[in-house]
Amino acid sequence: MFAVVKEKLHARAKAFAAGGIMDLYEAIDSRRSIRKYTEEEVSDRDVRICLKSAMEAPSARNEQPWQFLLLRDAAQREMASKASPYTGMAKKAPLVIIVCGDLRLETAPGFWPQDCAAATQNLLLAARGLNLGAVWCGIHPVQEREEYLQKAFALPKEVIPFALVCMGHTTEKFHSQDRFRPDRIHEGIWQENPHL
Amino acid sequence: MFAVVKEKLHARAKAFAAGGIMDLYEAIDSRRSIRKYTEEEVSDRDVRICLKSAMEAPSARNEQPWQFLLLRDAAQREMASKASPYTGMAKKAPLVIIVCGDLRLETAPGFWPQDCAAATQNLLLAARGLNLGAVWCGIHPVQEREEYLQKAFALPKEVIPFALVCMGHTTEKFHSQDRFRPDRIHEGIWQENPHL
Repeated sequence: MFAVVKEKLHARAKAFAAGGIMDLYEAIDSRRSIRKYTEEEVSDRDVRICLKSAMEAPSARNEQPWQFLLLRDAAQREMASKASPYTGMAKKAPLVIIVCGDLRLETAPGFWPQDCAAATQNLLLAARGLNLGAVWCGIHPVQEREEYLQKAFALPKEVIPFALVCMGHTTEKFHSQDRFRPDRIHEGIWQENPHL
Repeated sequence: MFAVVKEKLHARAKAFAAGGIMDLYEAIDSRRSIRKYTEEEVSDRDVRICLKSAMEAPSARNEQPWQFLLLRDAAQREMASKASPYTGMAKKAPLVIIVCGDLRLETAPGFWPQDCAAATQNLLLAARGLNLGAVWCGIHPVQEREEYLQKAFALPKEVIPFALVCMGHTTEKFHSQDRFRPDRIHEGIWQENPHL
């Protein structure tokens, strides 16, 4: 029993050294879209953990076609907040990260949005693990949102804004929400609503 | 000290009950594309954990536009293996999961592929947490791959195969691989290669 305890604590300690303590399934289950933040800055260490996690995502042919644009300056965040009707919280978020796909890095044509989505999901999970609130705001494939951000931040034409992530410390709760739906699971030749 | 130990073990026990013990960052860092599997079946419990994790992903307007088609039958897996030049391992994987987007469920037009990508990434991380090998094979947006699978498994025309995930127990190692690239991080108005 003591050996087990020691081993578990050792694993925890290793995990902490690597950047945080959070059970994978707890992170997946309790990640929520959080749109209200305190004024506390997100530390450089936390930003690095989030971005490293994003960059660990799989991508088609391992092309890693992503670029990350950080916005901390208030005027720049306010500018970003006007990218869509749903990005108003960027104004008050201590940190905004625009996840972009760089077409110059693409080796598997057409796959960059799903690569960027996998990276964004890793980023959100990492934020959850650090008890940071975060929300994924859709930019691509809405062309006017893409063009607005490209112009606002002088992005090269091949760098396409994919998602705008707002992030910060929060007083909101990370509650679990069970979205498991057996009726979305099918086996073999298709049948509608297999479990109904 | 004992209280802390107890609390940590309690959290671990809860995590285990929920489906496994795995540090979030360890899962993110050591998830690899694994294409070789043993013949051991993937248990129903593990399949459920993977699919539940997938369904916990965020989606545009929370539309949850996904459907999951499981293939365990050898003839069906062989059929699936012909979907692309890169899906040959489906023949020998104990389990194939085709993640699909269902256009009938879409409420935010155009966002379903990134929703399905977030779900697929959660699925892969959950598999990693269970020490299952898995690989994400791209289907969408390659139309001939989509159409092949739609025909093979009699999918409704609105159900678009997005990715084919092969999964199984494995003897391969889940090694970490550091993909952190500071040159992909920018701040404010764009500058090329800010760290060079």
